[in-house]
Amino acid sequence: MSQTLKIAVAGLGTVGAGTLKLLNAESALLKARCGRSVQVTAVSARDKSKDRGVSLDGLEFYDDAVEMASKADCDVVVELIGGSDGIAKQVVEAAIAAGRHVVTANKALLAVHGSGLARQAEEAGVTLAYEAAVAGGIPIIKAMREGLAGNSVTRIYGILNGTCNYILTRMREEGLEFTDVLEDAQSLGYAEVDPSTDIDGVDAAHKLAILASLAFGREVDFDSVHVEGISRISQMDIQFAEELGFRIKLLGIAAITDHGVEQRVHPCLVPADVPIAGVEDVFNAVVAESEYIDSLMLEGRGAGEGPTASAVVADIVDIARGLKIPTFAIPAVDLKSPEPAPMDRHYGAYYIRLMVIDRPGIFADVAAILRDHEVSMESVLQYGRSPDEVVPVVMTIHETEEARTVRVIEAIAKVDGIVEPPVMIRIENL
Amino acid sequence: MSQTLKIAVAGLGTVGAGTLKLLNAESALLKARCGRSVQVTAVSARDKSKDRGVSLDGLEFYDDAVEMASKADCDVVVELIGGSDGIAKQVVEAAIAAGRHVVTANKALLAVHGSGLARQAEEAGVTLAYEAAVAGGIPIIKAMREGLAGNSVTRIYGILNGTCNYILTRMREEGLEFTDVLEDAQSLGYAEVDPSTDIDGVDAAHKLAILASLAFGREVDFDSVHVEGISRISQMDIQFAEELGFRIKLLGIAAITDHGVEQRVHPCLVPADVPIAGVEDVFNAVVAESEYIDSLMLEGRGAGEGPTASAVVADIVDIARGLKIPTFAIPAVDLKSPEPAPMDRHYGAYYIRLMVIDRPGIFADVAAILRDHEVSMESVLQYGRSPDEVVPVVMTIHETEEARTVRVIEAIAKVDGIVEPPVMIRIENL
Repeated sequence: MSQTLKIAVAGLGTVGAGTLKLLNAESALLKARCGRSVQVTAVSARDKSKDRGVSLDGLEFYDDAVEMASKADCDVVVELIGGSDGIAKQVVEAAIAAGRHVVTANKALLAVHGSGLARQAEEAGVTLAYEAAVAGGIPIIKAMREGLAGNSVTRIYGILNGTCNYILTRMREEGLEFTDVLEDAQSLGYAEVDPSTDIDGVDAAHKLAILASLAFGREVDFDSVHVEGISRISQMDIQFAEELGFRIKLLGIAAITDHGVEQRVHPCLVPADVPIAGVEDVFNAVVAESEYIDSLMLEGRGAGEGPTASAVVADIVDIARGLKIPTFAIPAVDLKSPEPAPMDRHYGAYYIRLMVIDRPGIFADVAAILRDHEVSMESVLQYGRSPDEVVPVVMTIHETEEARTVRVIEAIAKVDGIVEPPVMIRIENL
Repeated sequence: MSQTLKIAVAGLGTVGAGTLKLLNAESALLKARCGRSVQVTAVSARDKSKDRGVSLDGLEFYDDAVEMASKADCDVVVELIGGSDGIAKQVVEAAIAAGRHVVTANKALLAVHGSGLARQAEEAGVTLAYEAAVAGGIPIIKAMREGLAGNSVTRIYGILNGTCNYILTRMREEGLEFTDVLEDAQSLGYAEVDPSTDIDGVDAAHKLAILASLAFGREVDFDSVHVEGISRISQMDIQFAEELGFRIKLLGIAAITDHGVEQRVHPCLVPADVPIAGVEDVFNAVVAESEYIDSLMLEGRGAGEGPTASAVVADIVDIARGLKIPTFAIPAVDLKSPEPAPMDRHYGAYYIRLMVIDRPGIFADVAAILRDHEVSMESVLQYGRSPDEVVPVVMTIHETEEARTVRVIEAIAKVDGIVEPPVMIRIENL
């Protein structure tokens, strides 16, 4: 194990440059911790000459990352290109085929092709490591795969997208609407120019699918994740949630239910006094639950140069130390098929906001619909009184099946005097 | 790696019995995750016949745990006897001498003899694992040793004793005094009959010394930990802290300072809005800080049968998977000497409560003392007015050296009209 571990890095964006910087700055510490030197030997990027704040002197440079993955003098290929298909996938497959270990921060790739790539890597006897793909600087993959190795996790959930959490935090703290905060976040660099992957919940869904596979020993099943984003969340709902003792968070939640594996990403009302409700700004957090540990929460920075480079380097150190653990904690060929639970069968409580013309009788119609569907109301609040004007009416209903809630909302939407489509947000029992 | 991993368990108290139950209940899962079976072959306890809710049929039983450690048919000895010396230490040394891996939950042993035992284990080529020794079900050892392997941690702190956190939480929530809650905690089994190890801060200090060694790559230095317990915390201070925007927590804090490695366990005022302030009841939490990740917090159950057994089994799984990492992340022979920072040189802010006879002029004397020592007051609050009666006066002072604060307090204590020794609690900048 005294031989130098040689690293080739594909992609020199923020995380790639950060990884080079960390490996340079901490080389003595890493040598002490690995029992051998870790050295970058090759890099690949679109533009060699761009100033990244780190020298590329003495490194082999490849224009073609796929060529680097198979030909460079290296033991490990670090894939930081991104995207579920295209070059990133080719780089990973070429590296595995050439017998190189792979470290990747690519959540989309793992979410879409994770089980297949894990099988390829395990057949080739190499490691496919992806700590940086989920929740950046939080070592949640290691915690799940090793730290909780004695546990059958029954539910795992988290704040998996820092951009969404930042927007929701500022909406709550400053009383702003979604679009205003989004624009500001874009100008500050906290949100992308095209923010859809973040705000539509897709990024969180990628991460959730990976966590669910690891937690439950099943093939990664991104296609079955129920995904809703945060763009429909209004200031009004944030304030009503707060009055009811909740905060609105975009959570990814995966759980074993009577109907299969539930995977969902959507805005939730969470009780204001549970730990994850206090996770604010760009911070991420993941909670795992099992019989033995009850619950474990990890909270930290989920993105950015330093946290993501830290995760990439942790995977490199594992490889340097000779760690060999199956990609998803059990051999990929033994991962069970996904068995997704239909969202219709989700069982939970709901917040429903109606915009109602303030006149007698309308709420009697709503109450009759609830009664006819055997749905039980927990609370109802009308905010303000303005005869013949439109006012918000908020109600929360006790736990019931999603399909039934959908039918109730469809029926309520048709009541004369309800002037907008009802807003529904799920209430989580955490 | 397809051979069964054989386990001998020394000590069948709550955690020992819990470990046997977990290994039985999850044997299929563990086999899938380890790629081999894990099987208990031998146990040792004082009383063979005691009902522990788990069968000992088919297991070799030893009255003498040290004999078991050297003679039983096993690959791993799990030491769950406890205590820094005596039989526990003999068991661990015998196991290492016989070439067996060791898994222990023994924080006192590691805190006092950790560096020496690590050297012995590494010379013998066996693993000494201790995830269960710090913060129970929270995989903080793995997170530090591997998850943050690319980071130079600069500060690590946490709520490391569930009994103290439970007592402080109930004091705050219910307005009770320390002794009342302690008695109740004892009757509920949350505090020992002799609670001194917990409430005096010694248990937290054991854990802190282990974390500091791991974080900073230095020999374990329990003797240098500055330790204060929670028995002097009064309801009055809890209320004043809350009015000032703080909560009182017993923290263990280890940090690299200009004067060496600071290690201290004592009650602290922490800002009410930082994540660790919200960690309540018996929960533990640990926060690690470094340049790259900024900060990472892990929160969960720090004690009890299930969480501790989960940690013991995680270590067993690591061994079954062939993981080989030095005990304290770098080889024990390379651990640096401790270089403790003297507590006199601690630099921080302080809360000071005086009991003062309410008459003119006394506070002028106090203010003069502060001025003469060049200590700057941040706030001063007198609660209530009762001429010639004793009233509490609370002040907070800006960051200064501990030695100076001690001199100030000694001088204030001598002021005519100050009727009790001043109460000092450090304010943490988290």
